Amino acid sequence: MLPINIQEHVHVSDSTAIDTTVAPPQGGIQEGARETLLALRRSIDNIDAALIYMLAERFRHTQAVGELKARHAMPAADTEREARQVRRLRDLAAAAQLDPDFAEKFLAFIIKEVIRHHEAIARKTNGNGAP
Amino acid sequence: MLPINIQEHVHVSDSTAIDTTVAPPQGGIQEGARETLLALRRSIDNIDAALIYMLAERFRHTQAVGELKARHAMPAADTEREARQVRRLRDLAAAAQLDPDFAEKFLAFIIKEVIRHHEAIARKTNGNGAP
Repeated sequence: MLPINIQEHVHVSDSTAIDTTVAPPQGGIQEGARETLLALRRSIDNIDAALIYMLAERFRHTQAVGELKARHAMPAADTEREARQVRRLRDLAAAAQLDPDFAEKFLAFIIKEVIRHHEAIARKTNGNGAP
Repeated sequence: MLPINIQEHVHVSDSTAIDTTVAPPQGGIQEGARETLLALRRSIDNIDAALIYMLAERFRHTQAVGELKARHAMPAADTEREARQVRRLRDLAAAAQLDPDFAEKFLAFIIKEVIRHHEAIARKTNGNGAP
């Protein structure tokens, strides 16, 4: 396991932030805060599950692209496509009030992983599935 | 912009991989491959948009958690929660046929970003929103 110290912290501030003002229930303000924290964590857990499944689906598609390109001797890199993707992700991030620099770093992070796996699987693909 | 060389490549192989076998249309095999590539890219673009919006939503929630914890003097870190999150993401990744090590690296990547932004916003939160 990688060392992980802090899971939950603030990121960006905006005027439509989630309201975490705690109305004290029977157990007092601390009990109300604890309930609010657990509710936020349940949402974070749901979001994380969605992210993992979306990432899995993305890799299924990039795998298919890699196999298609290998089979038809198409060039592996497409710098115009890549530049368009970066611009698009930055625009989407801005629309979602996410730091565009983070969105670009995220794309680079995914691509780094894709490249890491590329060589081993390229061998298999170039061999047309033969062992 | 960060240097990005290769956007699309293979990642993991499984028996339920997307079929990219190309049926030659009027333009021949290369034209069919080109159409298949464009269709895959449209799906990748949709998935990327979903990922960006999910990430934005995750940061909204971690921001709310950070503000809640600061307001109620709750400890910033929770090592038990963190360990549970890592185990859960690894299990989800395995179920989705995604490399569990990648899922764990992904969580660490997000947390690194959260920590990067933490100090500046913690100041604001500790000041209880006052300028």
